[in-house]
Amino acid sequence: MLNKVLTHLDQNIEKSLERLFSLLRFQSISTDSAYKDECRKAADWLVEDLRSIGFEASRCDTPGHPMVVGHHPGPSENCLHVLFYGHYDVQPVDPLSLWEDDPFTPSLKERNGEKVICARGASDDKGQLMTFIEACRAFKQETGQLPVKVTILCEGEEESASPSLIPFLKANRDELKADCALVCDTGMWDTDTPTVSVALRGILAEEVTITAANRDLHSGAFGGAAANPIRILTKILAGLHDENNRVTLPGFYDGVEETPPHILQSWNELNCNAENFLGPIGLSIPSGEKGRSILELIWTRPTAEINGISGGYEGEGVKTVIASQASAKVSFRLVHKQDPEKIRQAFRDYVRSLLPADCTVVFQNHGASRAIQLPYNSPFIEAAKDALSQEWGNPALLTGMGGSIPIVGDFKSILGMESVLVGFALNDDCIHSPNEKYNLKSFHKGQRSWARILVALANRRVND
Amino acid sequence: MLNKVLTHLDQNIEKSLERLFSLLRFQSISTDSAYKDECRKAADWLVEDLRSIGFEASRCDTPGHPMVVGHHPGPSENCLHVLFYGHYDVQPVDPLSLWEDDPFTPSLKERNGEKVICARGASDDKGQLMTFIEACRAFKQETGQLPVKVTILCEGEEESASPSLIPFLKANRDELKADCALVCDTGMWDTDTPTVSVALRGILAEEVTITAANRDLHSGAFGGAAANPIRILTKILAGLHDENNRVTLPGFYDGVEETPPHILQSWNELNCNAENFLGPIGLSIPSGEKGRSILELIWTRPTAEINGISGGYEGEGVKTVIASQASAKVSFRLVHKQDPEKIRQAFRDYVRSLLPADCTVVFQNHGASRAIQLPYNSPFIEAAKDALSQEWGNPALLTGMGGSIPIVGDFKSILGMESVLVGFALNDDCIHSPNEKYNLKSFHKGQRSWARILVALANRRVND
Repeated sequence: MLNKVLTHLDQNIEKSLERLFSLLRFQSISTDSAYKDECRKAADWLVEDLRSIGFEASRCDTPGHPMVVGHHPGPSENCLHVLFYGHYDVQPVDPLSLWEDDPFTPSLKERNGEKVICARGASDDKGQLMTFIEACRAFKQETGQLPVKVTILCEGEEESASPSLIPFLKANRDELKADCALVCDTGMWDTDTPTVSVALRGILAEEVTITAANRDLHSGAFGGAAANPIRILTKILAGLHDENNRVTLPGFYDGVEETPPHILQSWNELNCNAENFLGPIGLSIPSGEKGRSILELIWTRPTAEINGISGGYEGEGVKTVIASQASAKVSFRLVHKQDPEKIRQAFRDYVRSLLPADCTVVFQNHGASRAIQLPYNSPFIEAAKDALSQEWGNPALLTGMGGSIPIVGDFKSILGMESVLVGFALNDDCIHSPNEKYNLKSFHKGQRSWARILVALANRRVND
Repeated sequence: MLNKVLTHLDQNIEKSLERLFSLLRFQSISTDSAYKDECRKAADWLVEDLRSIGFEASRCDTPGHPMVVGHHPGPSENCLHVLFYGHYDVQPVDPLSLWEDDPFTPSLKERNGEKVICARGASDDKGQLMTFIEACRAFKQETGQLPVKVTILCEGEEESASPSLIPFLKANRDELKADCALVCDTGMWDTDTPTVSVALRGILAEEVTITAANRDLHSGAFGGAAANPIRILTKILAGLHDENNRVTLPGFYDGVEETPPHILQSWNELNCNAENFLGPIGLSIPSGEKGRSILELIWTRPTAEINGISGGYEGEGVKTVIASQASAKVSFRLVHKQDPEKIRQAFRDYVRSLLPADCTVVFQNHGASRAIQLPYNSPFIEAAKDALSQEWGNPALLTGMGGSIPIVGDFKSILGMESVLVGFALNDDCIHSPNEKYNLKSFHKGQRSWARILVALANRRVND
């Protein structure tokens, strides 16, 4: 049965690519309300596609962008039930001028000798999401059924802190609860090494806006007397790190654990260093806490980053202005048991402590999620590891992950199930950047991987 | 003769306002090349207007925006010759959303019980420029001649560091040389107290752009390992001031002189304090060097200001990005004998000293001008003081000025003449800000003031 399905996937790669291109054409940028309609259209497209392969699927509207939920029965009453999660929303595309092609006109190109799918969302997460749906389609068309019972949940707010997700999970607990969740929003260690992610950093996002004078001022008339909010903001932000690149907020490291030495050792054997990790992006010096390896820095150490800053005149040439306002978007990557709300409070207290008495500050809460640590050896993770190792001809790695997938925590706390995180993205996919791509090999072998994983999960259940 | 001219100005205020409105409609933003054509149109309008009152006038093209030059003979061969200077270019208008009306659709409104002319450039400098031209028009129409020989020079690049000015002055030295320059780009002490400015701060403008990675990065995948150019930039900018708000660049205070005690005393008597100077703009704490009075801070102490900052995601919501680049526009107000080029070098050295070895920096030189100190008692300044005191019924003040009028230095060094700086702008004119205005009283009594000054200068010559 599996071989027939794998052959089907090989023979239908062009058709599957056409379907992915249709999904990539929707400008489903969730963080910018101007694209609300595009998000809805992408959701509708997914509903139709799932129905076409026998899912009972529907668009579920929320106060934000809609969810897509689909159900497909398994081969028997008693079979394993998996909940597959992906997201159809994408990151903003600016700076648009750096894109080689229109971000929403997908194309298949050759880059560095690899065939790649180019578009915003090709990798994060539409391409990844479709690897699973294509695997289901192949099972359905070749065998008339799926090897396990499948519920699919596609979100449209993953790139904007998922405001509707928790209420939706709570309201639909019975419908969504399964034996385990499969999440396809992660990457491989390299082009040949499949990976299951077990440690995920959380995130806490804040926007801070400082107001000084009640209007923009002429820097000649007022300079030297009037407070400059950009100067105040830069002083505040510059104080977030000490000389060892540690974050200075009081209590920031509460709940941070040391990674066990044997785990660190397995990561050290991957030979990831400043030269090969930072070299491809044009850098050479790790910017994080001194005395930690690259993989520790990005997988199990927390950070403070300024994601954006804005104030005063930003156009061409000169404007001798003292701005009234300046603002920054700041985010913290969290690990282990760090408490987002305590850190948010510490950040706000810190900002207020450096604010001159005649200036004001407004904070915007852009959401937060705790870090996740999954067990290293659950039966589901073991099954996925085995299936991936067979497909790629290399043992699958258990790794950490620098980014946040908050839903993994929500699945645990609300639906009481663990997740298996498998994905086929690569470090050079330029997710969140101009010229995002997804290797055709990732798309194709990703589909084959899911076919193998579904069979492995079904068999494991039989063996249990 | 003078009374006839003053009466003419009183009776023709509406017509003069119509002419000013025509000039205000041109979107002559010099710093943004998108408005090049609008600058040329404003220059052409001025040429036509000057010709209509007997000036031999022409538009003189430059590599940037054109100059307007007009000549009008005086009553005799031997009479005094003045060069009047103004500028027809204006500042950018952003943030546009804060304007009550379109910045280039001028209107006469009532604000705080005063009739005010509302438009970008109403005060800086189109309204001021037209006070002089209207005075000339009145002399011409009432007496058929002007009391002195007048050359008018209108620039179109004052708001963008005047790149064409020095070459133009040098190339046209003979045509532009006069006995003294009259510059109308300054303000009054308050609504009733006319002012002649004698100390002007210089300026040095730099743009600094820091590049870290060769592309924007996902802050999950790279955060903790990859350098963040916004963080680097904020650290650099935050180090520009010490805890006493003094600028930290080595050698920055070389050439700064202490203002003589009797001058400081005369300023102290003006009773300008944090409450009445900063209160109207919503502030209360002087941000400059500790231990200096407000007027000293803005007139005779140097500053470092961040006029704009930009980097990463600046749109709505969140983007978990580590930007590739961040940039800031920085300017320094200079006093006395500070050397702009030495300070530029010190700034660049300082930035480089804090730059990680794997990042790069690009500097853009946005021009510089030294500070100016004029004599307190030249015959021209004395004449202007007397005329102003008569028109306004209050003794005219001799003051410093926080802003830069580089041309005053150029007139001295290239054309060998001193300047008289007289203007009718007010602190609440919102120059360089949204909702710029010019009081109708400034426009009207400004015209009358110039009529008196021209007669006083002509008489002084006779008396010399």
